[in-house]
Parts: sequence; structure tokens; C-alpha cells
Amino acid sequence: MRTAKIKDLLKTTPANQHVTVQGWVKTFRNNQFISMNDGSTINNLQAVVELGKFDEATLKRITTGACLAVTGELIPSPAKGQTVEVKVESIEIYGDSDPESFPLQPKKHSLEFLREIAHLRVRTNTFSAVFRVRHNMAFAVHKFFNDRGFFYIHTPIITGSDAEGAGDMFRVTTLDMEKPPRTEEGKINYKEDFFGREANLTVSGQLEGETFAMGLGDIYTFGPTFRAENSNTSRHLAEFWMIEPEMAFYDINDNMQLAQDFIQYLCKYALDNCQEDLEFLDKRAKEEEAAKPQDQRSELGLIERLKFVVENDFQRLTYTEAIDILRESTPNKKKKFQYLINEWGADLQSEHERFLVEKHFKKPVILYNYPAAIKSFYMRQNEDGKTVAAMDVLFPGIGEIIGGSQREERYDRLINRVKELGISEETIWWYLELRKFGTAPHAGFGLGFERLIQFVTGMTNIRDVIAYPRYPGSAEF
Amino acid sequence: MRTAKIKDLLKTTPANQHVTVQGWVKTFRNNQFISMNDGSTINNLQAVVELGKFDEATLKRITTGACLAVTGELIPSPAKGQTVEVKVESIEIYGDSDPESFPLQPKKHSLEFLREIAHLRVRTNTFSAVFRVRHNMAFAVHKFFNDRGFFYIHTPIITGSDAEGAGDMFRVTTLDMEKPPRTEEGKINYKEDFFGREANLTVSGQLEGETFAMGLGDIYTFGPTFRAENSNTSRHLAEFWMIEPEMAFYDINDNMQLAQDFIQYLCKYALDNCQEDLEFLDKRAKEEEAAKPQDQRSELGLIERLKFVVENDFQRLTYTEAIDILRESTPNKKKKFQYLINEWGADLQSEHERFLVEKHFKKPVILYNYPAAIKSFYMRQNEDGKTVAAMDVLFPGIGEIIGGSQREERYDRLINRVKELGISEETIWWYLELRKFGTAPHAGFGLGFERLIQFVTGMTNIRDVIAYPRYPGSAEF
Repeated sequence: MRTAKIKDLLKTTPANQHVTVQGWVKTFRNNQFISMNDGSTINNLQAVVELGKFDEATLKRITTGACLAVTGELIPSPAKGQTVEVKVESIEIYGDSDPESFPLQPKKHSLEFLREIAHLRVRTNTFSAVFRVRHNMAFAVHKFFNDRGFFYIHTPIITGSDAEGAGDMFRVTTLDMEKPPRTEEGKINYKEDFFGREANLTVSGQLEGETFAMGLGDIYTFGPTFRAENSNTSRHLAEFWMIEPEMAFYDINDNMQLAQDFIQYLCKYALDNCQEDLEFLDKRAKEEEAAKPQDQRSELGLIERLKFVVENDFQRLTYTEAIDILRESTPNKKKKFQYLINEWGADLQSEHERFLVEKHFKKPVILYNYPAAIKSFYMRQNEDGKTVAAMDVLFPGIGEIIGGSQREERYDRLINRVKELGISEETIWWYLELRKFGTAPHAGFGLGFERLIQFVTGMTNIRDVIAYPRYPGSAEF
Repeated sequence: MRTAKIKDLLKTTPANQHVTVQGWVKTFRNNQFISMNDGSTINNLQAVVELGKFDEATLKRITTGACLAVTGELIPSPAKGQTVEVKVESIEIYGDSDPESFPLQPKKHSLEFLREIAHLRVRTNTFSAVFRVRHNMAFAVHKFFNDRGFFYIHTPIITGSDAEGAGDMFRVTTLDMEKPPRTEEGKINYKEDFFGREANLTVSGQLEGETFAMGLGDIYTFGPTFRAENSNTSRHLAEFWMIEPEMAFYDINDNMQLAQDFIQYLCKYALDNCQEDLEFLDKRAKEEEAAKPQDQRSELGLIERLKFVVENDFQRLTYTEAIDILRESTPNKKKKFQYLINEWGADLQSEHERFLVEKHFKKPVILYNYPAAIKSFYMRQNEDGKTVAAMDVLFPGIGEIIGGSQREERYDRLINRVKELGISEETIWWYLELRKFGTAPHAGFGLGFERLIQFVTGMTNIRDVIAYPRYPGSAEF
């Protein structure tokens, strides 16, 4: 039953081979030219139906979206832009597609409309290209780390601990919500819940990842993470995939270098392996850009942007240097920033990051050595007594694509910070123990996979780069 | 700061290179021989300390579990079983490990004890080997599918639908459990929950996977899935990873062939890429076996078992054929089975599957064409009117490792079954629509990743092949 894929047939030298092609009808022109696609490539295969060879009833069923198998000879194509076509001898129709009700007609649909039919949108050129690229990027992630001797760890999804000490987690429970068991004091009795305690969906695999780096050396995670934030933006999802490498014996500089090597590798992999899809997406992005006012258009096209990332070092500078630049910048002096930068210690907003990346340096930027006060408890304290060895990689159009740090490996320093911030020692006893038994300098970072896919595909809404996006009010499908 | 890994150093031809090695102390013998490991390999590197060269205080800190960097010359080793060693010139101690309190002393610890310190167990030989093998198997999964033109899809973790129509799901919520909002009728008002509806953790990505196969052709998922079953066994986890390929234009026979090719590929990949770890685990399994009564021991060792799978076709037979064999079998006639097989239609129990695999055929078995009544609604109905094109791959010692089927692609047949079983059409409207617009024959299966890792590593408890196992009462770490 399995037959050749269109991707392979299009690369075959035609020599009157007898082939069967299975796929979906994109268009059917003049009762003669069936444009078929099977998802293996952005390109369609043309199947040519001899006039008068098939009955009217069959031809009528060849509509956009219908699924069929055609059998015939693979011959050189006289048409432009394709080297082969199939001269149809027989047609088997697997599935009809009523033109009146099939929502995907051969015309441009809005992304908003397509989100409502997320079960069908992968049949469009745009989404099939996006998801082929996404696959290639996922594979490249694994290949990058595997080639370098990193080990992939599946850290837990359901967790009793809270990596960031932050709120905004999803509760996981099997208690009867209508009538939950209660303690004598009348509170919910989580001892009777499935795990015998309160449990949530993970916001990060980092802490568990560190435990494995302290045994296996270099590890990475690649799994779903969750935020129960009520953010209805084009940059946030409630469920997204994150990649978190963690390396024993790395300091902050090794960490920055790995982050750059990693993203450059991924962009190069896309250029090398997704050429046709990227060309399509590049063209698509250019059309979208053309609809924008001149001053909001990107200077570089999609493919140019990827090449630029591959070929240029990222600009590294400390938070302190960034503050100096921002303080002296025109938008700060002219009070164009919504949040003016007056003093050291300010948390940088998206407008400041964009200024540094898009206006000042015009390239990806790695900021490091942030004030301790605005960063997490586990980041390594620098000798200046006020900064930590944190780093953020900032990308044009995307903002923060990577966040990471060297970790505090010194027990005394870490426990002081934990106490200062009132973090529950009971919950992270095992994390603290790493620093008691053979502690080692180490570092790591997190890459938001969907942000990466946005950058590589040029899709502006994060909901359009994941199969079934989860956000407030939406868990359909 | 980054230095060579022990795995690479052990393969280096010694020529008095100056090297730095970073890792954890396994043992320190005679104040002279430090056995170091960095997680890159099961093998240790010996670092030799010249007597009298270092002060007593430093030597005292070189204890099991301590983390250090040693620098010195890489020289040929006179000791047995290793070609190189390091003649130590300097030692930097990164992290001490107090012998009184470090739980992992160089002796055999029980697996039960190690589960309680899951944050440290990866520092043992057994668990470091298991997790290196697990990494290699995950990479092999991706490589297998990528090489064959399959696309990796991240299906949703939080879902409003229920793939199997089964219960036993984990609820995901952000409602205040103590005081949830209520409707006028006094019920929990899920409209006010994060997703505006009831939401659960997925039990399978299959249904969503099918939607992508109907656009991209061949796809697979590899992600966490969940069961809120109160099963405290060595074969069940509440959170586990599943691989679910789904292929347009495959029938049940293509599906069986792919399943066999897939597992054989994975076993061969392990043999080719994890040789040293498998030798260690093979030895370990043999020691465990030796403690069992003669008649409960496996005939084949771990590596022999993997080779056997690679080299032999799986036995394919229909459910009906299996029933005939079982009915006539000695344990059935002698009433040794707990559940006697009397008639066609009976659901097979683990004892029956084990008999077929381990006693009768003595090889992996694929059973197919099961009675419709004991299988899921989406499985393709055969022309006999009573069976469906379902398949289970059964493995020695593990039982069912793969379950799959050709899917019912005919709208009428599917909707009848959905109605018969009372499944909510409202919830799976999008799944049903696949059969309305360009439906295609297709098939797929699911492989429980941890079951595979058990088979490849010989670990008998599923809790010992995942980083942080989740089961009733346990969400620590």
C-alpha cells in the first residue's frame, strides 16, 4: 500500500516508470491537471488526466481537499517549474471533500480563522512549511547535543517543587473538586490527593536537570513547560516546549559560547535542510511586511536574517555597560522610552532590549552579569557583591530567546540566598544537597522552542508555530 | 574551564600530554590511586598521586563523591584493564564529600534505597549506565523517523478531549480549590477556570497526531502521557513517555512491519552505540538472575536478548489463532491459568501473553485482528463484522510494548461506533471531520518508552528507568 513520496518523485529522473502517488488535491484545473500534495514537501506533483479517459462522475469528485491515489507513468513535464509529472492511467478516490463545506478553499485565509480549524490548517502551504521546519529544528536540537556528548533527560512534568519560587502554576489533582476531602481545620486535605501532596505542572526542568549534570556531566532537557499566566499576547503560551542544557564545569563564558554555537547551528541546519520551505516562508513574510508602514519593516528578509545570525558573533556586554548605553541613548534623553532608564538596578523592559538589538548593535546581543536583586536565587553571586552571573540572549523581533546563568555551587552562599528570599528549604532539600556532596561549578540555560521557531519561520504569532496552542480560554482539540 | 572528557581520554594514545581531568571520585586507594568518573562513560580514569607529593590535608579531602580537577601527564598505565592514567601534578578540589554523611558509599545499595535519593542515584554505575542508554534510545527514535521522512509533532499535554474515552485522568486547574466559583446550580463553574472548560492531562497524542498525518503524511509524537490509575506496580507510572507514529496510507500490515523495523532498529542502535554500558548492565542482570530460583531465570542474557530481537522476525498471528493455541495449551487444560480460555472474545491476560511469547513461540509476537468489543472506537472494522484491525506487540518479560491499529477512516462506520459507545461527538468533532474532508486509510501505534528502556537495560522496575518516577504518593523532587 505504501508508495513513493512526492518529495522523492520530484527528484526522480523520469524514465516512464510506473508509479502510484497518494495525496490530497490542491487544485484541479481544466478537468485535466491535478495538483497533488502528500505533505512530504511544499511542492506539488502534477498528475495529468487525458481528456475523455475518465467518466464525469469520477472527475467531479476530484475537488480541493479530496484524497486520492493516481497510478500512471512518470514522464518529463513540459510545464514550467517542474521536471516530472504523472500521466494518469487510473484513479482511486480515498476520500471526497465537498467543495461547499470544506473550509480550506484555494485562497488566502486569515491566520485567525485557521487557528479555529487547527485540525485542518496543516493542510495549507504555510502551516505544512512551519511544521516541517519545526520538525527539523527539533531534530537539530537532538543532533547538536548528541554529537557533543550531552545526554537527554526527561525531567518530571508533574512536580511537588517550584523551580522559580514563582506563582502562576497549574494545579494537578485527582480530588473530587465538588466535594474535596478536608482536614480537621476545614482546609483541602492534599494528603488524600494522588501524590499525597500538592502537585503542579513544571515551569522548568532546570533544578532536576542540575542533579543529572552532577552525575553525567553534560545534559539537556527538551520537554513541555507551563505558565498559568493570564497573558493573551502573541508572545506567550500556557504550554510551550523548552530546551534546557546544563553543564558541569562550565562557567558563564562557556555558557555564552555554547548558547551562540547552539543557535547558530540551528539556523544553519534550517538553511541547509529546509531550503524550499524557507523560500516559501521568506516570500510569505515579505508579503506580510509589504502591508506594513515603511518604518516598521525589517531591514532583512527571513533567509537573510538566518544567514546574518550564522555568520556574526553575538554582541556580549554586561548589564552595567547596557545601562550606560541606554542612559545616554536618544530615546532615553528624548523621553521616548515608556520606562526611562535613570539608574543602575532597573529591570530592562522589552523596549530597551529592542533598542539594543535592533537599533544600537543591529545584531543578537548577550547581556550578562545582572543585578542579583532582579534575578533568581540559584544564580552564581559575583565577587562585586551585587551582580550574579546571569545571561540573556536577545534576538531581533523576538526579544529574549535564551535565559541562563552560572549556578551558585557554594552551599553557604546558596543557603543564605534561599533564607533571604524565604524559599522553602524543605521543598528543595535535594537541590541543596548537590552543594553538600561533591559540588562542582556548572552553568546552563533555557531556550524557548516556539520563540526559536518564530524566528526561523518568520511567523509573528506564537500560536501559529505549535500544533494546538494553549492560552487563556483555549484548550480545544 | 572546559576540559577533555574521560570517555575521550581513555581512547587517546598516551604521549605525555598535559591534561586536566574534572570529575567525581569513585574510590581513593592507598592514598595513591584516585578512580575518577565524569559521567561520560561507565569507565573510570585512574589518577596516580605520587606518595609524599601532596600534604595530608589535601589527601584527606579526596573521598568518594568529592569533585575535583587533577592536572598532569597522560601516560601509559601499567595497571590491568586500562591503557592510560594521569600522573598527577596538581589537584583542585571543587567540592568535598563528607564520608560520614554521603549516602553513596562504594558498596551495593538497594534499588529501593536509591529511589529515595533519586537526585544522587545517577552517580552510581547502574543508573549512569541506564540514563546513558535512555539518551541513546531517545536519539535513535528521532533518527529512525527523521531518516524515513517522518515529522515530529508536539501534541498538546493539557487537553479538553479524552482520547480513549477512559477515565483516570489528572485534572488541570487554576481554580481556588478551597473556594471554587460555583454556578447557580451550585456546581463548580469551569467556565471560570483557566481554559474556560474542564481540562486534563493527555493520555495519548494519537487523535491529534492523526490530524497531522492527514496533512504531512507520516508523523510521530514523543512526549509525556499520564494515567491517574492507582497502580502501585513495577510496570506502571502515572507519568511516562510515549512514542506514537501515525502514517497516512498505511494498512495494518504496513503498521506491523514498521513496528518490527522500529524496535529492531532501536535494539541494534543500542548494541552498536552502548556497548560498554550494556556489558555492565548484562553482568548486573546476570547477578540478579543468579539470586532467583533456577526455573525463573531467563534463558538469554541481556545482550543475547537484544541480538535475538534484531535477528528474528516477530511472530505474527491473529487473535483467533492465538485463542486456538491457548485453548489447546497445557496450562489451559491443566487449569494452571488463573483465567481459563474457553471461548473466542475473551480479553487476553498477561499470563496468556507470556505463555505465547515465552513458552510457545519463544520470540516477540504480534497479535492482530482483535474482537471489536475489547478494543477502542477508532480502530478499523474488519469485513468479518466482529474484529478490528488492532495489533499488540508482545515482548518477553515486558508484555505489551506496542499497541496500535489501522484507524477507521470511513465516516459512517466511525460515527456508528461513536454513537454505540456513547462518546461525546461534541468533544471530538474535529476528529470526526477528518473523515469528512479527504479521508485516507491510515494506521499508527504507541510505544511506551519506559517499557522499551526496561527491555534494553534489563531493569525490572519501571521506576528505575525514568529520572523522577511519578506514582501514587510520590511527586518528590
